[in-house]
Amino acid sequence: MALKKLGKQTVVFDNPPYIVSTASIVGPKEGEGPLREYFDMILEDDLFGEKSWELAESKMLRETVKMAVQKSEKKIDDIEYMLSGDLLNQLMSASFAARDLGIPFFGLYGACSTMTESLSLGAMLIDGGYADNLVAVTSSHFSSAERQFRFPLEHGNQRPPSAQWTVTGAGAAILSSYGKGPRVKYVTTGRVIDLGIKDANNMGAAMAPAAADTIVSHFCETGLKPDYYDLIVTGDLGAIGKEITEELVLDKGYNIAKNYNDCGLLIFDNKVQDTHAGGSGCGCSASVFCGYIYKEMQNRKINKVLLISTGALLSVTSSNQGQSIPGIAHAVSMIVDD
Amino acid sequence: MALKKLGKQTVVFDNPPYIVSTASIVGPKEGEGPLREYFDMILEDDLFGEKSWELAESKMLRETVKMAVQKSEKKIDDIEYMLSGDLLNQLMSASFAARDLGIPFFGLYGACSTMTESLSLGAMLIDGGYADNLVAVTSSHFSSAERQFRFPLEHGNQRPPSAQWTVTGAGAAILSSYGKGPRVKYVTTGRVIDLGIKDANNMGAAMAPAAADTIVSHFCETGLKPDYYDLIVTGDLGAIGKEITEELVLDKGYNIAKNYNDCGLLIFDNKVQDTHAGGSGCGCSASVFCGYIYKEMQNRKINKVLLISTGALLSVTSSNQGQSIPGIAHAVSMIVDD
Repeated sequence: MALKKLGKQTVVFDNPPYIVSTASIVGPKEGEGPLREYFDMILEDDLFGEKSWELAESKMLRETVKMAVQKSEKKIDDIEYMLSGDLLNQLMSASFAARDLGIPFFGLYGACSTMTESLSLGAMLIDGGYADNLVAVTSSHFSSAERQFRFPLEHGNQRPPSAQWTVTGAGAAILSSYGKGPRVKYVTTGRVIDLGIKDANNMGAAMAPAAADTIVSHFCETGLKPDYYDLIVTGDLGAIGKEITEELVLDKGYNIAKNYNDCGLLIFDNKVQDTHAGGSGCGCSASVFCGYIYKEMQNRKINKVLLISTGALLSVTSSNQGQSIPGIAHAVSMIVDD
Repeated sequence: MALKKLGKQTVVFDNPPYIVSTASIVGPKEGEGPLREYFDMILEDDLFGEKSWELAESKMLRETVKMAVQKSEKKIDDIEYMLSGDLLNQLMSASFAARDLGIPFFGLYGACSTMTESLSLGAMLIDGGYADNLVAVTSSHFSSAERQFRFPLEHGNQRPPSAQWTVTGAGAAILSSYGKGPRVKYVTTGRVIDLGIKDANNMGAAMAPAAADTIVSHFCETGLKPDYYDLIVTGDLGAIGKEITEELVLDKGYNIAKNYNDCGLLIFDNKVQDTHAGGSGCGCSASVFCGYIYKEMQNRKINKVLLISTGALLSVTSSNQGQSIPGIAHAVSMIVDD
């Protein structure tokens, strides 16, 4: 077995990389939600001064990188890699931001799991000695996602109760080989799991088996128990997916009920904001982690977190061809040193 | 500077990972080209027994992984990561193959640079001790790419002479911490470069500046000269992009003319096959490397190769919104040990 591997999916770091800073930008609706005070910038207009929602999304991604770099007291020029992706076809948001920033770029696609995919690979690149500083960043945008994956917004279609609301938001995290901040202790890389769900308006149920698989592998391979963590938090399963995940994980002998939540449930107040099953999108776990969770870790209100961003790997083409929705989830374990 | 970094973009490996096996599958047209004898399988029908070209592409990707694993005398279960992507929206080809294979999966998108993106990250994961065995794999398919990026095939549109022909093909490489085969000595990670080309029928010109930037960085940071390599080979610049790259690199003081070629020119015989400026697509450099180049390295006909897969990071949306085409290129240096 490889040097730093625990079991088949989990890596343990010799020199746990530091998350030295984060930054987040969200849209107007997210800025009215329960986490509003934790975000660095709330847009008044989701076009962000651009001519299209796609360009606005790319600008959010780019600006979170700049803000995170500034907070870390580094320069863009110090950042050796940008690990980034988004939901847009061919990663338009990340690719165009990478063009403007000029940082060597690895484009990633894990649908809404991209935040922990980028943190996982980023942590390996830092711990392995291939970089001293890099940025892991992702975004999503309600308006660009709706028209790409579902219907033109002008169509005004009804949404079933199981549907989720794509978060307009971006989150960037600077990982370093030195400095201060929470450290990435373990990463558990997900497998693609597909139990046959075909309803693109029930993504939580499609992603839940992948989330459960990764969470169970994490505990099994590290030997940790759920109560080791102050917070176990999935990316964007929403109300339905969260319930299924909790049950699937319990079936395997791990009770996570006490300290488990979901970024898609944290970011909106469904009673007031009418977001149905909860938030979704790459920007959901990105902005909740880079906004709320990171700041609570800095304040020592939360010291040990297992973040599991969750992705639904469908496309319009795969759905039109009658295929079911493959899911994936990557877990990143972050600890505030004593 | 990070331990294993030479300059800003290049990594040098302490324990250069072995490429212990490769496999390639190509379509009927590629099977009539000059490299036909090097491919492991040539499809008679580009549907490969599936109901859609997208599913056929995914099957090609999946089957090359199985063949490469078999050739390495390992089992699928020994493969710790699958680093993979393709041109289809949301990586339909890679995601669905990863579902069937069950290997922990990092989805990548670098357009046609994905082969060297996956080899680069894969080499870092092996050298860093995070895996003993992994697979880097990518694919493209003429028919699925044409209808996604350009026109329905039934439309029968004319193609300008600068247009390239998307390769129907897949290539997989098994990287290991031990074994036999060419070793990955350096990787040079690309930045996104965009000099303003907007013509999606002239991708070679759009990608050439990125290829030149990465090639120059590679020589500058390693201190190597172009004649160190037996072959310097770009991914899919075609005739126009190759000429521009050669000139841009010469402007910076490196003459690569003697040993420089392009996978897009190697795979087709344009005089007979009417492929205009040459081949393109993720599957172009993937099948040419995993077929032709790797086998020539095994036979010691080529001992030192710099492979630079090249990607055009456009999307239908970005083109429709009048944006120019950002390019990227990642270089992987592979050496047969004496």
